[in-house]
This record gives sequence, C-alpha cells and structure tokens, in this order.
Amino acid sequence: MTDITALDTADPFARTRALFDLPDGIIYLDGNSLGALPRAVKGRMAEVVATQWGEGLIRSWNTHDWIDLPGRVGERIARLIGAAPQTLMVADSTSVNLFKVLVTALRLRPGRQVIVSERGNFPTDAYIAAGVAELLGQGHELRLVEASEIEAALGDDVAVLLLTEVNYRTGARLDMAGLTAAAQRAGVLTIWDLCHSAGAFPVDLSGADADFAVGCGYKYLNGGPGAPAFVYAAPRHLEGLRQPLTGWLGHAAPFSFAETYRPAAGIGAMRVGTPPVLSMSALDAALEVFDGVDLGALRAKADRLFELFTDEVKRLAPELQLATPSEPARRGTQVSLRHPEAYAVMQALIERGVIGDFREPDILRFGLTPLYLSFAEVKRAAEILGEVMRTGAWDQPRYKVRAKVV
Amino acid sequence: MTDITALDTADPFARTRALFDLPDGIIYLDGNSLGALPRAVKGRMAEVVATQWGEGLIRSWNTHDWIDLPGRVGERIARLIGAAPQTLMVADSTSVNLFKVLVTALRLRPGRQVIVSERGNFPTDAYIAAGVAELLGQGHELRLVEASEIEAALGDDVAVLLLTEVNYRTGARLDMAGLTAAAQRAGVLTIWDLCHSAGAFPVDLSGADADFAVGCGYKYLNGGPGAPAFVYAAPRHLEGLRQPLTGWLGHAAPFSFAETYRPAAGIGAMRVGTPPVLSMSALDAALEVFDGVDLGALRAKADRLFELFTDEVKRLAPELQLATPSEPARRGTQVSLRHPEAYAVMQALIERGVIGDFREPDILRFGLTPLYLSFAEVKRAAEILGEVMRTGAWDQPRYKVRAKVV
Repeated sequence: MTDITALDTADPFARTRALFDLPDGIIYLDGNSLGALPRAVKGRMAEVVATQWGEGLIRSWNTHDWIDLPGRVGERIARLIGAAPQTLMVADSTSVNLFKVLVTALRLRPGRQVIVSERGNFPTDAYIAAGVAELLGQGHELRLVEASEIEAALGDDVAVLLLTEVNYRTGARLDMAGLTAAAQRAGVLTIWDLCHSAGAFPVDLSGADADFAVGCGYKYLNGGPGAPAFVYAAPRHLEGLRQPLTGWLGHAAPFSFAETYRPAAGIGAMRVGTPPVLSMSALDAALEVFDGVDLGALRAKADRLFELFTDEVKRLAPELQLATPSEPARRGTQVSLRHPEAYAVMQALIERGVIGDFREPDILRFGLTPLYLSFAEVKRAAEILGEVMRTGAWDQPRYKVRAKVV
Repeated sequence: MTDITALDTADPFARTRALFDLPDGIIYLDGNSLGALPRAVKGRMAEVVATQWGEGLIRSWNTHDWIDLPGRVGERIARLIGAAPQTLMVADSTSVNLFKVLVTALRLRPGRQVIVSERGNFPTDAYIAAGVAELLGQGHELRLVEASEIEAALGDDVAVLLLTEVNYRTGARLDMAGLTAAAQRAGVLTIWDLCHSAGAFPVDLSGADADFAVGCGYKYLNGGPGAPAFVYAAPRHLEGLRQPLTGWLGHAAPFSFAETYRPAAGIGAMRVGTPPVLSMSALDAALEVFDGVDLGALRAKADRLFELFTDEVKRLAPELQLATPSEPARRGTQVSLRHPEAYAVMQALIERGVIGDFREPDILRFGLTPLYLSFAEVKRAAEILGEVMRTGAWDQPRYKVRAKVV
C-alpha cells in the first residue's frame, strides 16, 4: 500500500492547490467538465467590474487594453499547448471556433470535399462539421469512422481531418503527431480539438505540425462556466488567413469603419465581435495558476493519481469496468468506468461528497486535476465509490431521476 | 432658460440613477457605446463567482439553472423590444447572431440572392453580410443603398433587408414599421439590428411584424464590456427554425449526446456553444434596472435631454453642425455633431470630464441615457463643450494623437 501521506507531503502541487477555493466536504473529480475556482478570479472580477468598467468606463478599452485582451490571454494558453507566439486567439465558443477553422481549412483544399472525424467524437464537433458540409452544399460530406480506421480513411477526396485528442467519454487519447503526419502525407489538413487536453498535460501543436486547433477555457484551464474558447492556426496559415465570420473586430483596422472587410494580419483574423471582457478577464486571472507550472510534472502526478484511483477501484469495486486505456500514452487524465446504472451510482456518489459526472449510456467520469487534488482525496473517493457499490446504496429511486443537465 | 433644478427634482429617473455607480467628476455621455455600471452587478458577480461557481461547481448547471440562463435573460430583453415570450435568446456576439439570421433568412427565400442594406450601416453588418454572400457562393450579393433608396431597392431578386434601426454615426432612425411593411409587400424578409435601440426607447418588433432581429447587451442595456448579444425570430419562423452554427447546445437534447444534430424547438435553436455564465449573469443583473421602467417615459426624458443639449450647443458652440435629425421620430437618443477636428475636440472634452466618443471622419457622439443622466449634467456638458470651442482649447498636438481604440 502506497504511503499516501508521504505522497501528499512531497507533492509539488500542494502550492497550486492553495491557489484554489474548494468547498469543504467535497472531493471534486469533475475538473474535466468545469474547473474549480482559482482564488485570484474573485479579486480580478471585482477589480474589472468596479474599477475597469465602473470607473474607467469606455476609456478602459485603451487604459486597460481590453482591445488586446483576447490575444494576451491567447499567449498564456499558447505556452500550454506548444503553440508559437501570435498563433492563438481567445474568442467565442469552441463550436463557433470549429466553424471558423472548418470553413477555412475546406477553402484551402478546394478540390476535396470530405471531412473525416471519429465516430464518438464530442457531438458539437460532428454537428458543426455536418452543418458546414450542408451549408457549403457543394457535395461536401462528413465521414465518421472508428479510431482504428482513421488513417485508412484519408483518401484523396479528404480535405480535413477533425479529431478530438482525448475522447470525452472514454478518456482515450489519439496519437496527435502520428495522425497529423499521416494526414500530411495524404494532403489532408488537421484540426485538433483540445478541450480535454489543454491544461491537462503537455500538448505540442508545433511539434506535431498540426494545422488548426480549438479548445475550451472552462475545463482544465479553470476559466469559469462558459469561459471563452481558443483557436489556433499554424504559422504557415497565418498569411492571408481568412475565416467566414467576418465581424468587425477581425478587420485590419476596425476603427476606420471602412465599408469593406479586410482581414487583420495573422491570427487576429480569427476575431469576430466585441470580446466578453468580464468572462475573458476571469480566464486570464485563472491562467495565472499555471505560472511556473511544469506540465510534464503535472502529467506525472496525474498518472500517479490515475494508478492510485484505478488500483483502489479494482480492489474495492471490481464490478466497475475501466473504459479508459491504462497505458499513459493512450489516454488523457480522466478515469472512465462503466456500469449499467452509472447515472444512479454517480448521484449516490455526489450525495456523499464525491463529484464526478455521468455520460450516456453507462459511463462514470472522474477528472484527475493535479493542480488541486491530493492523493488522500483521490484515495478517499475510491473508498466511497467502493462503499456505494458494496452496499448497493446507489439503488434508490431518487438517484435515477435525471436532472436537466447531466 | 429652463429651470434645470426643477427638471431634476421632478425627474422620475432619479430613482434609477441611484442604481448605478458613476465616478465622481465625470459626465458620462457614452452609454451608447458602453453602458455605465449598475450597482447590482458587483454583488451578483461576487455571488456567481464565489458561490455558484466556487461552491456549487458543476452542480450549478442544475441548482442555479445556468443551462436556461440564456433564455431567462432573453425574456428580460424581450419586454424592452416588443418581442413575444420565447422568441429571444441571449447568445454569442451581435456579429455571430447576424450570421445566423442572415443564413436562416436566405434559406427561407431560396429563389432570391440579394441582401439589401444601408450604405453607412455599422461595419459588422455589412462585413458579415458580404461574408455570408461569399460563403454561400451561389450568386449571392450584398447591395448597399442610401437610406432614401431602400424601398426602391426591394426588387424581386431581394431575399433579405438588413437594417440597423438607429445609425451608429448620425443617430438617424429608420422607420421600422414602414420599411418592414414595404419589405413584406415585396416578399423580402427583414433583419433589424437593434444595437442602438434596445433599452434606449420603446421598440415594437411584434407591432412592426419584423422577421428577425439582433442587438448587443453592452450599450443601452448596460451589460458590461462585450456583454452577450441577443437574437430574435418572429413566432412564424420558430417552427423548424434552423441556423447554420449547429453547436451542441442548440440541439433538441444536448445531453443525449446523439450523433446527429436535431435542432431544439423554437428559439432554442439559436443557441450554439456553452453560454458565458459570468458575462451573462452580469447582463442579467444589469437588466434589473429596467424593472418597472416605462420606456415611453424614458424616451420622453431622452427627448428633453436632447433638446436641452442641442439648444445649448447651438447657443454656445454654433460652429458645430448637428448631424442628427431633430425630429424625434427620425432619430434615436444620441446627439451627433460634426467638426473637422472632432477627434481632438473629443479628447479635450474627455480631459475636462465629459466623456463622449468620436466616429470617423468628423463626428462627436454624445449618448443621452435617461436612466442615469441628470439635466444639470447634460447642461454642464454643453457648457464645457462651448468653452472648449470658444477658447480653441482642443487645438493642442496631444489631442490629435489617435489612441488604439477610438
């Protein structure tokens, strides 16, 4: 048996845990869905509201440089995912950013009409891709294939390969470098959805030579509910970059109020409307937590938490089937467990202070977020899960009533 | 000379002024660009951050009903613009919402390919429309005409008439009811941009029988910098409503995680990604200011402020030319004045505590927001403007250096 106290005592991330506000009596294993609250956000929001908005009023677009906030926050995220400076912009939602990069990529491959993605990708990726195909209406098509068939699907009619690196349901991780290289050999552009990657472990967009990427700010980046998303384009695509949502803040000179759209140079062309300064400031403050964080060390701790949790679950609740690959290279940092009554089990757990979530049809998800989770908590969560399973405590009618949001 | 003190003493909006935080020593005439801070926002943001996010964590999607926040805030705005219940959704930015309704409207008029708009409309409207025309690429075209030519331009190749009710530069107001009726006679769908209308005066989308509308949350609605925007569809368009940004939260059952997109019933189909809960909560709290406000009375006060300001300017700074129609029915609630050195004049004014803004090439803009402006302030602003003009105080090199954001 591992000495849990020793692990926590030696944990370099005890420092970052102190940067979060977490409620008493809760073990929070859902940072893969909504990250916990970094303490710095409270002061920042109060300052942005009362001082920047309330006192500065319209002047703060200049004096607090709100106008460049999307790029500034973008630089903070760029470092976490191996993006070169000035290749990343914070803007809109993941869905809207997917739309931008899908249309952009399809325009770069005019002779090809197919978007390939993985069956079981997060729905918004497939929905937006199908919507783009329908909108362009020139024989464009979304083709969903199994993970094992992706490389074989990269035929010469394929324009774009759209993949989420870590599957939201199983936590399985695709080989970004290998699949991007395969796509390049086939003349296919790649779009990587990093919603379950950014802030969870080191991502290397530059090293993989990916074409485009998107991701959200509210999971492992802890930017708050519905935090703005990000969008990346490789340096080779920045010259002449043009996306279809030609809003005024993507213009080269928005305050000239010219009649005709002319895209901003570089990644600025990914901007559309006026940025949500309040939400974006929260994300900016939240990202301070990552200052000085070694993502390799973060991932190493996540792997130890993964082993601890899965070992304990195997021992205490053997009827739960691990849906996540155990080999580190083949997974993100969440643990997914299968049970036919997963929804009820999760409700019972939440009532006992262990918060994870449920995904259709039979998945219990547990996010392992080394920035703010201790080994003792993760071990205790497994014990509570074991107890819920051993006693059948989940088998209550009230645990089976579905909430609006699951 | 009007008795200013008597006007302020009798002003029913002294009550709402007390609901705002305004800095000392400033006369704020830029609420048409960024609304002032409603006091309630500070407490709400602190609560949403610390309690809803920090303590509630992922559970707040249900317990604080974050999931229906966009529709709830939409109902608050609906009342202000004559929209029936459940016809309005708060989502994304004005630009992104324009994209949604333009594509939606064009799909409803498949045999027609022209979008008509006014030359001099706010740039994002023209940019997005041109972008849509280019994206659809089936001979679609944006045709910009002068305000006086709009009706004549509604030929049988026109699918959509896209207009901003109140011009951002001049403050001139188009006849929404008349132009909508003319469009209907010509088989043309209407999209009204209400950025400079919503919260400024009574708007009657239902009465005008408009098809679609969009607008922003950060001007007269006081939702904070970059506040989420809104989108409206007339009841007759709600059945089978489908827009091109098919993100997961516009799905009929997002938490079923189905492989295929199926739009939500009604206005819910206008949703795309996860809503920015922090920014949207600020807008929600800000809209409480409008509780019990009679928009007719609000407009009446705006008209008296307009008369007071323009009369004083005529007297004290006769070289400034009024660019806004003086007839109330033909204008919104801003005052636009022309001067060849308008930028420098505005900088001199701002240095003297009167905040308006500048628009290319020669416009001084002053927003008259009855919710938080007194008659005495508006009169004093005109006096300071008169002094700046009389003394030539604006003619300093430092006032001519353009800031990044104007």
